Amino acid sequence: MNIRFYNARIMTMKDGVDVFEGELWVKGNRIDYVGESKSSNVIWDKEIDCEKNLLMPGFKDVHTHSGMTAFRSLADDLNLQDWLNNMIFPREAVMSGEDIYWLTKLAILEYLTTGVTLIADMYLTPETILDSCADMGMRCEIVSGLNKFGPTLQVLEDRYNNLNGKNPLVGFKMGVHAEYTCDRELLEEVSKLIHKYEAPLYVHMSETTTEVEGCKERYGISPVALFEELGLWDFGGSIYHGVWCDDADMEILKKRNISVITNPGSNTKLASGIAPIAKYLDKGILVGLGTDGPSSNNCLDMFREMFLVTGLAKLKDMDPKAVGADEVLKMACVNGAISLDHEDCSDLSEGKLADVIMIDLKQPNMQPILNIPKNIVYSGSKSNVKMTMIDGKILYMNGEFIDTDVDLIYEKCAQITEKLKDI
Amino acid sequence: MNIRFYNARIMTMKDGVDVFEGELWVKGNRIDYVGESKSSNVIWDKEIDCEKNLLMPGFKDVHTHSGMTAFRSLADDLNLQDWLNNMIFPREAVMSGEDIYWLTKLAILEYLTTGVTLIADMYLTPETILDSCADMGMRCEIVSGLNKFGPTLQVLEDRYNNLNGKNPLVGFKMGVHAEYTCDRELLEEVSKLIHKYEAPLYVHMSETTTEVEGCKERYGISPVALFEELGLWDFGGSIYHGVWCDDADMEILKKRNISVITNPGSNTKLASGIAPIAKYLDKGILVGLGTDGPSSNNCLDMFREMFLVTGLAKLKDMDPKAVGADEVLKMACVNGAISLDHEDCSDLSEGKLADVIMIDLKQPNMQPILNIPKNIVYSGSKSNVKMTMIDGKILYMNGEFIDTDVDLIYEKCAQITEKLKDI
Repeated sequence: MNIRFYNARIMTMKDGVDVFEGELWVKGNRIDYVGESKSSNVIWDKEIDCEKNLLMPGFKDVHTHSGMTAFRSLADDLNLQDWLNNMIFPREAVMSGEDIYWLTKLAILEYLTTGVTLIADMYLTPETILDSCADMGMRCEIVSGLNKFGPTLQVLEDRYNNLNGKNPLVGFKMGVHAEYTCDRELLEEVSKLIHKYEAPLYVHMSETTTEVEGCKERYGISPVALFEELGLWDFGGSIYHGVWCDDADMEILKKRNISVITNPGSNTKLASGIAPIAKYLDKGILVGLGTDGPSSNNCLDMFREMFLVTGLAKLKDMDPKAVGADEVLKMACVNGAISLDHEDCSDLSEGKLADVIMIDLKQPNMQPILNIPKNIVYSGSKSNVKMTMIDGKILYMNGEFIDTDVDLIYEKCAQITEKLKDI
Repeated sequence: MNIRFYNARIMTMKDGVDVFEGELWVKGNRIDYVGESKSSNVIWDKEIDCEKNLLMPGFKDVHTHSGMTAFRSLADDLNLQDWLNNMIFPREAVMSGEDIYWLTKLAILEYLTTGVTLIADMYLTPETILDSCADMGMRCEIVSGLNKFGPTLQVLEDRYNNLNGKNPLVGFKMGVHAEYTCDRELLEEVSKLIHKYEAPLYVHMSETTTEVEGCKERYGISPVALFEELGLWDFGGSIYHGVWCDDADMEILKKRNISVITNPGSNTKLASGIAPIAKYLDKGILVGLGTDGPSSNNCLDMFREMFLVTGLAKLKDMDPKAVGADEVLKMACVNGAISLDHEDCSDLSEGKLADVIMIDLKQPNMQPILNIPKNIVYSGSKSNVKMTMIDGKILYMNGEFIDTDVDLIYEKCAQITEKLKDI
C-alpha cells in the first residue's frame, strides 16, 4: 500500500523533538518521504488528511511479558518474590503455547491503543508469541527467559537459529531470566553461547534490594559485576529495571555499552524502588522504557510510563528539573529501538520502517498547543493515540482495530483466565 | 429527562466496591432506582443498553485551579516557588474574568473525559467560574483563594452570600490561598468570618518543606498548628497537599475533622514530595483526591492520580500492600464529596444526585474482568470513560461532548494563551 499523510504536524525525532508542518509518504513498509508539502504523481492507495494532528515515531515498549494478561488484577499488593513464587510460577507451569498465543494477542490490542510499534517480549513459548505477533502485525523481539527450570541451552540455541528470520516482523534475542533464577554453571554456558554468536544479552537485573543482596551473599559481588566477570556483557545488551545499580555497576554498564530499560510502573506498584535515571543519563548510559508485564504494572500504557519516568526522577532527586520531557520522548521512541539494534524503526527518517503513530491534538488535554513534547509527556494520555501504523499497515485508527476479531480474543482470554485463576 | 440504564454492571459505592448486574433509573436530576432488572411503566425519554459496561459514581476532583489551562506546558521543570512567583503570578495579574470563563470551559471538557462530576475550584474570578460551570453543566464548589494581595475580606463575604444559591450546580466555600501568602492579621480576620458563618475552611498547606520551615521561622509552629491556634479549624474543612504533616499535625487534623486532599501528580512533577497517605488512613483522617491545576500537573486525569496515590504510597513505605485499590476508589468518588459536605452525590444510592459515569470494560486494558476495582485503579485510563452524566444530564458520551462548541472553546483559549505566554 502507498499511503500519503498530509496536512500534518510532524515530529520525526531524527535529531530532537522539533515539530514542523508537512506530509509523510509511506510506500510499502517504508517511509518514502517526510518534509514540506509537495506535489507527487504517485497513485495513492489512501490519502489521509491529518487535520494538523501530529505524526511521530511509535513508542518502543522494550521490556514486557505480554502473555501475563491472564494475571491482570489477580495477584496485586504483593512483593516481587511472593508475587512470583506463590502466584505466578504455579500458574505459568500449566499454561499452554496456545494460551500464550491468545493472551499475547490481548496484550497487542493494548499496545496498539497506546501507540506501541515495537515490543521486546520475554515469555514462555516463543513459537506461539511469534505466531501471535505475525498474525496481529506487531513488531517484536522475543527475548529468551532462560533459567535453571528451563528450557535447555540447546532449545535456546535452536530458537535463536530457527526463529530469527522466520518472519520479518519478529526477531529472537538471547536472554536469561535473572541471576537469582540461574546458577553459575548455567551462566557460564550462556556466556559460551553468546560468544559463539557474538550476541547481546538481555536480563532482569538490580530490580530489588533482595536480589542484589542475595547475589552479594552468593558471589560477593553485585549482579552487574558478576555478569561482567562471566563475560556476559561482551556483546552488549540491556538490563531490565536497574533500580539498585551503584556507581561501580554504572561504570561497567557504560564501558560495555549496556542499556538500562526502566519500568517505573512496575517498580512503583511492587514497591521495588525508584531507578536513578538522572544519574544514568549523566553517565551517558542509554535508557529505554518498558511497561513490564500486565500482572505487575498492571497496564501496558506508555503514557503512564513516560509521566512516571520523569515524575519519579524529580521526586528521587527532589529536583523538578530532573529528566525533562524531551529526554523522556527520546527514551520512549528512539532509545528503545537502539537497545534492540533496531535503528531501522527509531525515527521517521526517509528509508526507515513505517512505524508511525498519530497523536490527536484536538482533545482538551492537548490544548493549548504551546509545547507539543511537553503536552505528550506531562498531560498526554493513550486516549490521544488516533492511529498506530506498523510496517506500513494501519492496525488501529479512531478507536477501531482494523481487521481484528476483538470479541474472539476477549472470549478466548476469558476462558484461559477462568482455567488459571483458581490454581 | 427520565433515563433508564439497563444491562449494566453497577458499583454503587454505597458500602464498598461490590459490583452487581442490574439497572439504574434517573428521573430529573436524581437517581430513582438502582438494583436488579425490573419492569416499569415509566415512559422513558431514553433507554440505554449498557452492554454489561460499568456504571459507577463520578470522580470528585476536589482540588484544582481550572483557569490555569492557559499555562499548560508553559512553565515546567521549576520548583513551586519559582514557578509561582516568576511564571504564574505575573500572568495572573493580567487575566480577565472573561479569560477565566473560557479557560475554565477548556478544563471542564477535560474533566468530562476523565469522569469527573464534581470539582473544587480555587481561582481568581468566582463570578465567571460560576458562569462557566453553569453554562457547561459542571458541578462545582468554588473555593476562595484569599491572600494578602486580594481580594478584600468584604469581597469574600459578599461572594459567600451572593454566589451560594445562585445556581444549583455551584457553591462557594471560604478558603485562603496559603499561610505564606497571608499575614497573621488577615488570618485572624478570616477566623472571625468563618466563626460568623460557621463555615469550613480550605487551604493549601504543608505542600513543601520550604513552606513548613518558613512558617516555623515566622511563628515557631507548623502551619497546621498555627491555624489551630487561630481557630481556623473550628468548623472543619480541608488542607490541600498535606505532604509534610508530622504526627502532631495529624492529631490536630483528626481532632478537628479536617480532610487531606492529596495531589500526587502535582507533588511529583514539582518534586514537592510524597504525602504520607497510609499514615493518614491509619489515623482515620479522611483523604480525598485532586489533580491540582493544569500548569503544575499538567493534566486533569483522575486515573493518573489514582494510580499515583497507591503507587507512591507503596514506594514511600516500600510496602506493596499500602493503600489498595478499593481505598483509592473510595477517595476518588466518595471522600471528595464528603470533604465538601456534598454527600448528596457521593454514591449511586436512590435519591442522590444523578452524577454517574460509565466505564467501558470492552477495551483491552480492562480485560480479563477478574476484579473491576483493581482494573480501574491499576490498569484503567481515561480512555475507558464512555459516559459522564452530571445532575441527570449526559454531557459526554463515546468521545463526543453533547451540545458543546468545542472548536470555539479551543479557539478562544488559543487567543488568550497567545496574549499571556510572552509576558
